[in-house]
Amino acid sequence: MHETPAATEEDPRAVDPRALDAHWRAANYLAAGQLYLLANPLLAEPLRPEHIKPRLLGHWGSVPGLNLVHTHLDRVIRARALRALCVWGPGHGAPAVFANSWLEGTYSETYPDVSRDAAGMERLFRQFSYPGGVPSHAAPDLPGSIHEGGELGYSLAHAYGAALDNPELLVACVVGDGEAETGPLATSWHSTKFLDPVHDGAVLPILHLNGYKIANPTVLARLPEAELDALLRGYGHEPLHVTGSEPGEVHREMARAMDTALDRIAAIQHAAREEGRTERPAWPMIVLRTPKGWTGPAEVDGVPVEDTWRAHQIPLDGVRDDPARLRQLEEWLRSYRPEELFDADGAPRDEVLACVPDGDLRLGASPYANGGLLTRELPLRGPEAFAVPVEKPGAARHEPTRVLGGMLEQLMRDTAERRDFRLVGADETASNRLQDVYRATGKAWQAAELPTDEHLSRDGRVMEILSEHVCQGWLEGYTLTGRHGLFSSYEAFAHLVDSMVNQHIKWLKISRTLPWRRPVPSLNYLLTSHVWRQDHNGFSHQDPGFIDHVLNKSPEVVRVYLPPDANTLLSVADHALRSRDYVNVIVAGKQPGFDWLSMDEAVAHCARGAGIWEWAGNGDPGAEPDVVLAAAGDVPTEETLAAASLLRERLPDLAVRVVNVVDMTRLMPHEDHPHGMPDAEFDALFTRDKPVIFAYHGYPWLLHRLAYRRAVHPHLHVRGYKESGTTTTPFDMVVRNDLDRFRLVMDVIDRVPGLGVRAAPVRQAMADARTRHHDWIREHGTDMPEVAEWTWAS
Amino acid sequence: MHETPAATEEDPRAVDPRALDAHWRAANYLAAGQLYLLANPLLAEPLRPEHIKPRLLGHWGSVPGLNLVHTHLDRVIRARALRALCVWGPGHGAPAVFANSWLEGTYSETYPDVSRDAAGMERLFRQFSYPGGVPSHAAPDLPGSIHEGGELGYSLAHAYGAALDNPELLVACVVGDGEAETGPLATSWHSTKFLDPVHDGAVLPILHLNGYKIANPTVLARLPEAELDALLRGYGHEPLHVTGSEPGEVHREMARAMDTALDRIAAIQHAAREEGRTERPAWPMIVLRTPKGWTGPAEVDGVPVEDTWRAHQIPLDGVRDDPARLRQLEEWLRSYRPEELFDADGAPRDEVLACVPDGDLRLGASPYANGGLLTRELPLRGPEAFAVPVEKPGAARHEPTRVLGGMLEQLMRDTAERRDFRLVGADETASNRLQDVYRATGKAWQAAELPTDEHLSRDGRVMEILSEHVCQGWLEGYTLTGRHGLFSSYEAFAHLVDSMVNQHIKWLKISRTLPWRRPVPSLNYLLTSHVWRQDHNGFSHQDPGFIDHVLNKSPEVVRVYLPPDANTLLSVADHALRSRDYVNVIVAGKQPGFDWLSMDEAVAHCARGAGIWEWAGNGDPGAEPDVVLAAAGDVPTEETLAAASLLRERLPDLAVRVVNVVDMTRLMPHEDHPHGMPDAEFDALFTRDKPVIFAYHGYPWLLHRLAYRRAVHPHLHVRGYKESGTTTTPFDMVVRNDLDRFRLVMDVIDRVPGLGVRAAPVRQAMADARTRHHDWIREHGTDMPEVAEWTWAS
Repeated sequence: MHETPAATEEDPRAVDPRALDAHWRAANYLAAGQLYLLANPLLAEPLRPEHIKPRLLGHWGSVPGLNLVHTHLDRVIRARALRALCVWGPGHGAPAVFANSWLEGTYSETYPDVSRDAAGMERLFRQFSYPGGVPSHAAPDLPGSIHEGGELGYSLAHAYGAALDNPELLVACVVGDGEAETGPLATSWHSTKFLDPVHDGAVLPILHLNGYKIANPTVLARLPEAELDALLRGYGHEPLHVTGSEPGEVHREMARAMDTALDRIAAIQHAAREEGRTERPAWPMIVLRTPKGWTGPAEVDGVPVEDTWRAHQIPLDGVRDDPARLRQLEEWLRSYRPEELFDADGAPRDEVLACVPDGDLRLGASPYANGGLLTRELPLRGPEAFAVPVEKPGAARHEPTRVLGGMLEQLMRDTAERRDFRLVGADETASNRLQDVYRATGKAWQAAELPTDEHLSRDGRVMEILSEHVCQGWLEGYTLTGRHGLFSSYEAFAHLVDSMVNQHIKWLKISRTLPWRRPVPSLNYLLTSHVWRQDHNGFSHQDPGFIDHVLNKSPEVVRVYLPPDANTLLSVADHALRSRDYVNVIVAGKQPGFDWLSMDEAVAHCARGAGIWEWAGNGDPGAEPDVVLAAAGDVPTEETLAAASLLRERLPDLAVRVVNVVDMTRLMPHEDHPHGMPDAEFDALFTRDKPVIFAYHGYPWLLHRLAYRRAVHPHLHVRGYKESGTTTTPFDMVVRNDLDRFRLVMDVIDRVPGLGVRAAPVRQAMADARTRHHDWIREHGTDMPEVAEWTWAS
Repeated sequence: MHETPAATEEDPRAVDPRALDAHWRAANYLAAGQLYLLANPLLAEPLRPEHIKPRLLGHWGSVPGLNLVHTHLDRVIRARALRALCVWGPGHGAPAVFANSWLEGTYSETYPDVSRDAAGMERLFRQFSYPGGVPSHAAPDLPGSIHEGGELGYSLAHAYGAALDNPELLVACVVGDGEAETGPLATSWHSTKFLDPVHDGAVLPILHLNGYKIANPTVLARLPEAELDALLRGYGHEPLHVTGSEPGEVHREMARAMDTALDRIAAIQHAAREEGRTERPAWPMIVLRTPKGWTGPAEVDGVPVEDTWRAHQIPLDGVRDDPARLRQLEEWLRSYRPEELFDADGAPRDEVLACVPDGDLRLGASPYANGGLLTRELPLRGPEAFAVPVEKPGAARHEPTRVLGGMLEQLMRDTAERRDFRLVGADETASNRLQDVYRATGKAWQAAELPTDEHLSRDGRVMEILSEHVCQGWLEGYTLTGRHGLFSSYEAFAHLVDSMVNQHIKWLKISRTLPWRRPVPSLNYLLTSHVWRQDHNGFSHQDPGFIDHVLNKSPEVVRVYLPPDANTLLSVADHALRSRDYVNVIVAGKQPGFDWLSMDEAVAHCARGAGIWEWAGNGDPGAEPDVVLAAAGDVPTEETLAAASLLRERLPDLAVRVVNVVDMTRLMPHEDHPHGMPDAEFDALFTRDKPVIFAYHGYPWLLHRLAYRRAVHPHLHVRGYKESGTTTTPFDMVVRNDLDRFRLVMDVIDRVPGLGVRAAPVRQAMADARTRHHDWIREHGTDMPEVAEWTWAS
């Protein structure tokens, strides 16, 4: 229960602590109201059961601490005219953020029906965790939020992503002590080694030691302070500790800590920007230790609630049915003295708003939190500028990702001043053959350097840390604040961020329904070092399932591309980098692979997403074929064309159509995905009743899930990766998974009716070729020359 | 290049450092040989191009450091007769472990053709990263390994999992400084707060500051030593720093650090076990800072290689084609003086083996690393002992996971002495309603305690940390060393460990092919707080895709169960806990749900995995039905039975068959999964041509991927979760996703031919009921009584 602190004058910059406290009380009142009240929001009359929500859902535990942080951020933002953003880590703290957004007016500006008066307050209360209402996280519908926090662990990485290339910005980040136990958060602290005090903004972490998770103490809250202090210093911080439960004292200490932290940040930035200081600074942070469920019910029926895990969700339940509980709730709510905080119409009084900044400086109005407002088109030169010349298909080879590296290099040059494009990856940029970017920019690095180092740079825009989670978190924060980027990863290890990408897709899905949220740049993945070319990494590095994972998610958000060669990769990447509000997954090889399409052809093919490669087929192009050979992915395309070539040579009368698919979602039903082909188009491509032998990059079952409603589905035979992995040669990998050219020809022969005896020797020849392969590789450890030296004879 | 240190006598316990150095040199020689040589393993003649592998694949960088650790572990294991295990974190360090296993003899004992002589050495060299050979990670085929390390980040959690409940065991764990940047590793350090010095063994982390990753310096290697020291002390350790590049000096320092660490561990254990000390100790650890690629080529063509990232993979390439490079390789290999290390037959000389322990104490022979050797059957009492009484279906409700909690409580009691069962979870055990286990054991906790805490205990066998990664890592380490466990998680957040479970499935898949690896207990997931019942957590907590993820993996390993009620959950859990070498995924609700089957019926139903519920259908049980209503999952089962009930009432002539599926893999083709039904059985259950309306727990497309080859597939209509999530009531969730009873009845009417006009009013009534729902929930915020109070009228 709440006591107002006495006024104090000790710091000349301090807002009257009574005003700070009034703001905090108001926010606490409004948050508690969200958990409980359907009506009677100002307690104009004694609480009755019908004022109480029928189902009490929500979380009180972290709310008062978050409200305290908001109040004190408001104070310093106002006092210093700071451009700021706050990332609210604690998962269920949204009632605090709703309360503050309503108090500062941004909520009502965004949602006029939730007006800043008694009627709006009632709507604010009612909608919370209510069917058709708003969730208990800082979801996209909450102004000022870029971080939902439903899944824990990413707040700090998001904060750093937002701060990159925003030198004027302060990103405060409340890290919950539950969240702090997650792996992603535990390593996000090391972002201190990647933040450039000259070109980037500042991150002010506020570790909120609330003490408890759902049902357990937190690890960090139970460390001796010296041990915790050592940990945080080890992470590169200078911790400022604020501890207490007496509001007046905590207000004073928190104000002092905020001022100290901001003074220190200003000094660091001044030293780096004006004096050229290059030593990595120890950035300040605040450790805020306050009771869980602070100012809520101290006890319920004699059992301690405040300052225990019991305050995590609803601290006082059964209030609708139990008059004593109802009285206790009323007492608790009245302890904030709402009549001092709100006028008779329900509007916050002046004192309550004394600390709130104006206009865009309000946290709920920060344009950085609605990044689409700040997004500029990337100065892309178009894929043609980087195209490899292709006079005829299959004559030359390029490493597709290296070609893409040229495009990224130019993009880095063309954004050198704007600084709104970043490349992230888990120590794999060079391994993924994108290293040409280093000719234009370096790898961000603020830690110690040695003379042998290469490409490290204080202001580099390539970000490499051996944590896919941090890479993803940085890029999410960067794109949600309106800038552009690409995450390159080994294909198998994209699964590390499965759950993060889920949350990002959910965020984008909801954002797209909110007219006031402007579209933000897409989150783009380049997955390379893929399943088929893990010659020495072997089985542990083989997993093409990220595609399956994202294709389960909201179709309006997800896009999956499998460009078969360098020029198609350029075209797809150019498209992805221009797009908004998507998650684009591009899978492409880094090993030398055949060039199939000229740039013009590539652009046209990628625009269609799937098409017939007439030059690769056999028979009358206008007529129905005997069989369709389809492929998606670079290695499957090569095997398919090799199979087509064998068929042309061995069974020249067979009418073979070759289809290549770049955009996987084109295979989906038109009703299920905006890119999905109508049946007529699908049938025109794949026929309705001819055998289709589909060589697919990933798990073969995916194709059936995408195409099961199509007429031709009973005739669809898919080859793909079936977990037959090991350390071996490229061709042995496809043989082990029955995706090799010889097997594809055998599949054709087994499925085209009426081929009869003339096909039998061909089938035997294919089986013999597989035997030759097995013998050769056992003997030589390499792929046999007839495969290694094969080229397309057009 | 290698200089032998002088002998020293300063530590009376020291093995002659010349012998240690000889062992280290031998291991380095054998590791380098694996990277390069096909023949001439002892350099009996000058190297010629044909002695060199045609493709040079592998990683040298971390090898000399790992060899150093192995040598010094050997010394202390031998000197102290320690029972030990080592987890080798650096991903590509396997050449070191292969080398040591061969040296100590365990490799040849496991693979007699790789004998401890010149012929065996040649095979050892040839097989490495060679088609049909062995991978560059410490994969299952490597004796002594429980940790492949192909994907980085889990070494320390594995080490702790192995140490739990093995009080006699020392688990050394080499943590690479690349791996240390991952999130899972960064938080695994906090395992110090969960290790009981009385009942658990010790973990000795050895942080190997090798300096570089693939292409970058590592963060931890570039911290000032004081900052790193603070970080590690903050994690709860007492760091012992060993730094150097002069072998003799490093041998001396490493021997001293090992002795100090082991003395300190012995003192900690003595204090806790004999003196009852309960303060959390600062466990010792070693920080080993040596050059990457140490003793390899210092420079190649004037460019520094040793002590740079260039030593990561093959430090010297082109040796087959370039005579100068070939000479440089030979010089390098000869710098280890193989003639001093191996006799003319290629066997290691006595001095080399002086530090190697005997028999089972050898790291490659540790029974802990072949956990099946140590596994005991769990004393399960059978599900009957915990069954809820079910006199008729659908009459009463239970919370299934709470019922399971009773079984787990008894299991905890029955393993109180044996201590070979653990329950892990990310702060969700009570939320998942398994809290009855606390009556039998507490939550492991070694940090500070407060009087208000409940169920914390120094020797508890429930493990809760807010990190799914650490939970998974602990349980993997625990089961791979032969003990049993269960991981309970919110369903959506199982995706956090997608990539970890991939690696574990791959490990089990390969292990199952190795006759010497004994089956280990399965890794069991209980996924609850599932997609359909996230009333207040909402959209961010809704994701049933973990099932899809695991069903892409090796069918011999994965099992997925969707028990529809409490008794079926007991039966399935009992089965999973008895099983070996599987990954079992069980999805079950925690909210009150109807009991459908008595225990006898549940056991029979789960044994079949899928079956007709005749009591729920309508029409002649022996005849073909007009329609099949199928369900998998608890919520879909309730909706399906409610639909069946509506149909019986409204369209009594319609012959309805109700099918329930518990074991998802039963739906797969028999050829694709050992549990897959033969077509005849599938057809008998689902018919070949009747409409099947399948209400499924997860993403509906999965069913099509499983069943597309079945005769009835064109008639299969699946309802499931289609990402229409929000914060709302249980019934509103099913309505939003078209899985509700009314929609299912409409689906039946739309798909059964010939129902004609008599069905039209029924269809309208169903549509009206959905409208009633929409109106009611907008008005009341709860589910309407006709749904909330519905029961099965049998």
